[in-house]
Amino acid sequence: MQVGFIGLGIMGAPMAGHLIAGGHSLFLKSRRAVPEALLAAGGTACASAAEVAERSEVVVLMLPDTPDVEAVLFGEGGVAAGLSAGKTGASAGKTVIDMSSISPIATKDFARRIGELGGDYLDAPVSGGEVGAKNAALSIMVGGSQAAFARAEPLFRLMGKTITHVGESGAGQVAKVANQIIVALTIEAVAEGLLFAAKAGADPAKVREAITGGLATSRILELHGERMIARRFDPGFRIALHQKDLNLALEGARSLGLSLPATALAQQLFSACVANGLGGADHSALVRALEIAGNHQVAG
Amino acid sequence: MQVGFIGLGIMGAPMAGHLIAGGHSLFLKSRRAVPEALLAAGGTACASAAEVAERSEVVVLMLPDTPDVEAVLFGEGGVAAGLSAGKTGASAGKTVIDMSSISPIATKDFARRIGELGGDYLDAPVSGGEVGAKNAALSIMVGGSQAAFARAEPLFRLMGKTITHVGESGAGQVAKVANQIIVALTIEAVAEGLLFAAKAGADPAKVREAITGGLATSRILELHGERMIARRFDPGFRIALHQKDLNLALEGARSLGLSLPATALAQQLFSACVANGLGGADHSALVRALEIAGNHQVAG
Repeated sequence: MQVGFIGLGIMGAPMAGHLIAGGHSLFLKSRRAVPEALLAAGGTACASAAEVAERSEVVVLMLPDTPDVEAVLFGEGGVAAGLSAGKTGASAGKTVIDMSSISPIATKDFARRIGELGGDYLDAPVSGGEVGAKNAALSIMVGGSQAAFARAEPLFRLMGKTITHVGESGAGQVAKVANQIIVALTIEAVAEGLLFAAKAGADPAKVREAITGGLATSRILELHGERMIARRFDPGFRIALHQKDLNLALEGARSLGLSLPATALAQQLFSACVANGLGGADHSALVRALEIAGNHQVAG
Repeated sequence: MQVGFIGLGIMGAPMAGHLIAGGHSLFLKSRRAVPEALLAAGGTACASAAEVAERSEVVVLMLPDTPDVEAVLFGEGGVAAGLSAGKTGASAGKTVIDMSSISPIATKDFARRIGELGGDYLDAPVSGGEVGAKNAALSIMVGGSQAAFARAEPLFRLMGKTITHVGESGAGQVAKVANQIIVALTIEAVAEGLLFAAKAGADPAKVREAITGGLATSRILELHGERMIARRFDPGFRIALHQKDLNLALEGARSLGLSLPATALAQQLFSACVANGLGGADHSALVRALEIAGNHQVAG
C-alpha cells in the first residue's frame, strides 16, 4: 500500500520503519530531515505534506500537539491541499490516520473537515512510549467509522499489539486522555501511600511488598513505586508531556461542564515539579512535589 | 496452642473458625454473644477479655477502631488485667496480636504498655475483607519483633495467604493505612478517567477495554471500574469504613507534618457520598460524588 507518514520523531520513526518492513511503500515528511535509515530501507522523502497526501492512499500523522496537527492538515501545502489536488474525487478512499495525542474536541472538527474533502479520518493515539514504538508493541485506541478502521487495521497490527476500535471520531483521543488521567492519578496514589509509610517510619519497600497482590495492586505500584524507592527519575515519560495530556483533560472537562478535582490537583503538583526543575524528569517524580511539601523523602 | 480471640464480627468469626480448624484451643469473647458455630466447633466462651488473657498464650483482637482496642486492652476486665493476674511473670511469653485496622501512632503506645507488663505485641492488620477472611486468603501486614512474628506466623498462615513482616511495632498499621490511601486514590483515578470518557461521548466499557493492559492497569480498574460501569454499588467495602481509614491517614499526616492533598480530597468526596446517603455503599461509589458534581453518569 502507498502510505504517507508525517512526523518522524522518537515515536514516528520506528513506527514508519515497521510499515516499510511490512512491505508498504512509504512517503515521508518531517519537520527535520527524514532519518537516513528510513530512506535506506526504501522510504521516499517528500517536499510537503501535500505531496505526501497526493502520493499516498493512507496518510499517518505522529505529531506533538493539536496545533501541529491542524497546521499539517489544513495549513499551506498541507494534507488537505494534497487530498483535493488533481481531478474531482481524487481523495475518495484516502484515509487520514492521526496517531498523535491531541484534543478530542478538535479531533471531531478535523474529522468533519477531512470528510467534507471526501477523505476518511481515524484518530488513533497510542500508549506504550518509545519502547512500545520500537518493539511494535503499542496500544492503539481508535476512533472513526468501522469501514475505515477495517481498512487501517493491518497497518495498526504492524505497529501495535493491543488495537481497540473504541467508537466514532474522537473516541480514540477520549480513551487516551482517560488513560493519562488514570495513570497520573495512580502515580499520585502510590506517591501519597509510600510517602506516608516512609514518614511514619516504615520501610517503603517492605510496605510495597506487603500490599502488592491485594486491592492496591497496579502496574504503577510495580513500576513507578519501584522508581520512587530507588530514586530513578530519568524518563520514561516526561512530566512536561504528561502536563500536556492533563491540559487536554482539564480543557475538555471545562468545555463539557465536568469536575475533575484530582486531575486538577495532579496538574498543580506537576507544575510544582516543573518549578523545581523536574519538567524533564519521569512522571514518577510527581512524588517530589509531595516530598518537598512534607520535607521528607520516600527513600534515600 | 491456647489462643484467645476477642471480636467475632464478620471478619473475626471466620478467622477464629480457621484457628479452631487448625487444631488450636480457642477462648472467645465478643461484644455480642459468641457465635454458636464456634462453640459447636469446640471454642470456649469467656466472661471477660481478662479471662481470655488468663487462659491463653496468644490473644488475638479483631475490633472496629482504636478506642475499642484501647478499651479491650486496658479497660476494666481487659486483657492487661488478665496478663498481669496471678503470680509475677505470668504474662511472660504471652503475645497480644491486634489484627484490627487502627492508628499506627496509638499502636506504638499500646505495644509499649503491653511490653511493660511483660507481654509481646504484634500489630497485624489485614486486607481482603469478608471474602478473604472466609477463604483464609487475607493479606496480613505485621509489625513487631522478629521473635514474636516467628511464634505467631503459624497462626497467620491459618488465616491468610500473603504474610509480610513489615517492621517494628506500628509498621503493620502503617502499611495498612498506606494500602487504604492507595486504594482510595486509585478508585478516584478510575472514576475521573471513566467519567471523562462517558461525558465526552465514548463508551466507558470500550475505553476500559482499550486501556487495560497498559500503564493504567490496576486491580481497581478491573474490579471497581466494572462496578462503576455496571452500577453495582452494593458492598464490598463500605465508604463509611474507608472514611475511618483515611481519617487515620490524615490524622497521621497532621501529626507527622506531611501533606497528603489527594487523600484529603478523596476523604471530602467520600463525605459528599455520605451526605447523599451512600455511606453504606461500596467505595467504588466514590464516582457518585463526581457524577453529582458533573450532572452526568459513567453509565446508565
